[in-house]
Amino acid sequence: MKLIHKQQLFTATLFCTTAFTTNFAQPADPLPSWNEGKTKQSIVTFVSKVTEQGSSEFVPPAERIATFDNDGTLWAEQPLYFQFLFAIDRVKALGPEHPEWAEKEPYRSLLAGDMKGALAGGERSLMEIIAVAHSNITTEEFESIVRNWLATAKHPTTGQPYTQMAYQPMIELLAYLRANGFNTFIVSGGGIDFMRAFAEQVYGILPEQVIGSTGKLKYEVREGKPVLVKLPAIEFVDDKEGKPIAIQRIIGRRPIATFGNSDGDLQMLQWTCAGNGARLCVYIHHTDAAREWAYDRTSSIGRLDNGLDEALAKGWTVMDMKTDWKIIFPSPRK
Amino acid sequence: MKLIHKQQLFTATLFCTTAFTTNFAQPADPLPSWNEGKTKQSIVTFVSKVTEQGSSEFVPPAERIATFDNDGTLWAEQPLYFQFLFAIDRVKALGPEHPEWAEKEPYRSLLAGDMKGALAGGERSLMEIIAVAHSNITTEEFESIVRNWLATAKHPTTGQPYTQMAYQPMIELLAYLRANGFNTFIVSGGGIDFMRAFAEQVYGILPEQVIGSTGKLKYEVREGKPVLVKLPAIEFVDDKEGKPIAIQRIIGRRPIATFGNSDGDLQMLQWTCAGNGARLCVYIHHTDAAREWAYDRTSSIGRLDNGLDEALAKGWTVMDMKTDWKIIFPSPRK
Repeated sequence: MKLIHKQQLFTATLFCTTAFTTNFAQPADPLPSWNEGKTKQSIVTFVSKVTEQGSSEFVPPAERIATFDNDGTLWAEQPLYFQFLFAIDRVKALGPEHPEWAEKEPYRSLLAGDMKGALAGGERSLMEIIAVAHSNITTEEFESIVRNWLATAKHPTTGQPYTQMAYQPMIELLAYLRANGFNTFIVSGGGIDFMRAFAEQVYGILPEQVIGSTGKLKYEVREGKPVLVKLPAIEFVDDKEGKPIAIQRIIGRRPIATFGNSDGDLQMLQWTCAGNGARLCVYIHHTDAAREWAYDRTSSIGRLDNGLDEALAKGWTVMDMKTDWKIIFPSPRK
Repeated sequence: MKLIHKQQLFTATLFCTTAFTTNFAQPADPLPSWNEGKTKQSIVTFVSKVTEQGSSEFVPPAERIATFDNDGTLWAEQPLYFQFLFAIDRVKALGPEHPEWAEKEPYRSLLAGDMKGALAGGERSLMEIIAVAHSNITTEEFESIVRNWLATAKHPTTGQPYTQMAYQPMIELLAYLRANGFNTFIVSGGGIDFMRAFAEQVYGILPEQVIGSTGKLKYEVREGKPVLVKLPAIEFVDDKEGKPIAIQRIIGRRPIATFGNSDGDLQMLQWTCAGNGARLCVYIHHTDAAREWAYDRTSSIGRLDNGLDEALAKGWTVMDMKTDWKIIFPSPRK
């Protein structure tokens, strides 16, 4: 909440400043973690074009929709999607309540710390682990479980809390766009309830601006109090074609700017950049093996192959993590 | 767009006034179409409580979520849901392209102007008419068809455009809540694309704040351009238990205020008023046969039966259209 309050105050102050003075100092660089260069320039130029009153490409604030993939775009996604690492920890925590798992895959291997064995069943094992970790609890219980996990769990490589693995340049970009009247939405294949547990605090993105994959919910009245129970059934997968579909269903307007990093974002970029007027489509290219990870065409996580070809063919912006970002993560917590 | 701009300016001005002066005039009554009385008082008292800094029931702006049913709550719904009247007109317009309909029910009767015959097949006929009227076109084509219809069609009883059958007191209430930092959402059984075609202009409710029933969409690339095609298959029915489920899925926060008029809104009222802190649950009771329509426990449209019992038992606000509203509709267009 605190973050939002500050933003609203900031916006209000901007309004007031604009209304009451005409001669005010140039603000400091709003994107200090971005190196000067083509990529930063393409973003700043786009924002100027659509926000300048009287510009032929001016876009009214309500139509300044910017959509962001999450995994690999706003925070890291290696060595495994963080939500899957959460699911593994959750299955381990649930182990004692399920003695039958001692004999049953993928649980037996997972509880024994043998991830290769746990995933031997392929996508089916993966989906089963995720379903078990995300269901048969109320939405409120789930939120509190995720928050507790985020407060205590550490990334296997960096040893940092997962929320410290959000990209500092993207946090600045989100704030910069909002300060310029944009509405910033997450449109991610990740689970919507999982992302909402940290999106407001880490990105300043409100719950109603988080779009993700969803499981079915059931409305029940328990002891006179209504609850929403998460069922072990997938309702919607917010990936590939699902992204423009979810954007239409939930936002109801075509974005003018969109940011992704994998082939799963390709249709969202296509949909955004096929609209009329000024558009900004950006692929984050993971090129920095030293400071983050380097992967694209052959990665099983965050594969960027067809998308990269189409970006190059259509002249979309390809952001190079190694050269475009001064820093990648916020300062590590001690 | 114009409406929204004015509101944003209004909000900005409020902020500035609050920031720069402490001694300013009391604004005029923001709810002039509401008679003084218990109902108006319950709304104004609730808004004061949750917006007063330092009040024990203060709610931060981002959490001031208010949800509204549409048919029978924000605009009229008699003698038939307006969206169904649209579907009938649309089937008539499509008639010439479908010679086979001359021999096929419910189309044969509908095209002959025999509504009783057209609906003889019950809900199945109804759903078929709606599916045909709403599918096999792109979302953009559909929006333009609805806008054209709203600009030309007239209500069968009043002869007014349908958008003139929105309730003036509710339009004032929406603006009043937004001026007090609320986010106002529609949560209706009506079709989401249908409502978005007028919600912004008539209610000041942005597309991303409209939640409704949805049909499936298909992402296609046609001649190099992506489109979203409306399919004749229902995806989600936003009624009864569907309302709290959709609220969780899309808004991700429990509303603190909610307004409905039928048993289809009961679960939304239960969900809202079961939350902690100050809550406002209001049922609009259609009691005015002279100025609008009078119906409740036995109506096939907008039935209010179990909901009325629960409202009385739980002490929710029941708004009496006859005594609580000075006027019902905006001035008729000449």
